Amino acid sequence: MGRWEPNARGRLEQAALELYAERGYEQTTVAEIAKRAGLTERTYFRHFADKREVLFAGAAALRELLVTTVADAPADATPIDAVAAALDAVAGMIGGRREGARQRQSVIVANAELRERELIKLAALSAGLAEALRGRGVGEPAASLAAEAGIAVFKVSFEQWIGEARDRELPEIIRQLLDELKAVTAGR
Amino acid sequence: MGRWEPNARGRLEQAALELYAERGYEQTTVAEIAKRAGLTERTYFRHFADKREVLFAGAAALRELLVTTVADAPADATPIDAVAAALDAVAGMIGGRREGARQRQSVIVANAELRERELIKLAALSAGLAEALRGRGVGEPAASLAAEAGIAVFKVSFEQWIGEARDRELPEIIRQLLDELKAVTAGR
Repeated sequence: MGRWEPNARGRLEQAALELYAERGYEQTTVAEIAKRAGLTERTYFRHFADKREVLFAGAAALRELLVTTVADAPADATPIDAVAAALDAVAGMIGGRREGARQRQSVIVANAELRERELIKLAALSAGLAEALRGRGVGEPAASLAAEAGIAVFKVSFEQWIGEARDRELPEIIRQLLDELKAVTAGR
Repeated sequence: MGRWEPNARGRLEQAALELYAERGYEQTTVAEIAKRAGLTERTYFRHFADKREVLFAGAAALRELLVTTVADAPADATPIDAVAAALDAVAGMIGGRREGARQRQSVIVANAELRERELIKLAALSAGLAEALRGRGVGEPAASLAAEAGIAVFKVSFEQWIGEARDRELPEIIRQLLDELKAVTAGR
């Protein structure tokens, strides 16, 4: 490993987002990202496998947080309560970074390969949630349905959050949409 | 166009599924699929753009059926009722072909590129459903949530249907899982 670079990872993520937004994802090279961050390409590749992965580097931490929150939910929590707690934890993690989330989303929606990668990430989060629920003794199909419902609420909430001009916070939107999903499935 | 080939499309689909199952998707060529179907490569490419698309040729019809069923649902149907009717129509369309669905699924789960394509197809079905619901005057986020919930139920039901040894039919599984989702989101 080279010398210690203070917050190299965060600086590279920030530089990549800026360049992707300014020039487009296809037109940006790893060399340019490293330069903007004041680091070397070698440092970049110590942190990320390629120029795509810098956009998805948070996925593992997201999954980990979902899974541990479900596992740590009180023994008498229902499956949807455990999922709600997990979404609340995730919202707390990413909720303070609306501008970065907006930038990232605009890069992703503009590129088919990135949209695919985002769908794969969401599917992996759903699979992780379902597995954590089964680990609590929730049977099938309840575990898979609760997990899919949770990711659906997360996805729609996230889009509302980055789309709207108002200042509702992500945890609040998620709680509201969980209630809305309950009303919708109940046939209201 | 060449001379009329009776059910060329269906024969090519069947031949592709057989060869993908026997030899693997990567190892199969379009020339081999055409030969197995007793047709020419030229005929193949009149029906499908490449060897991947033969596995996803039904997606457009599926989307069309979902969308028109939602549009044609009674005026007083709730969003989830309209979604349920659409899933029932789709189940009727594919429900008689469990063996083919199993073969197709085993090809898809074995290949990362095909799994991605399947996720994209499901996302497109959800987007189509949401749009059809908005066309009925359903607002957001109810339209997106009902659509995502419907596709989640479809996905989990489909996996149960092709996975289980018993002879429950797909429409029955879907109806049961819609009830189960209702119970799960209500906190039971």
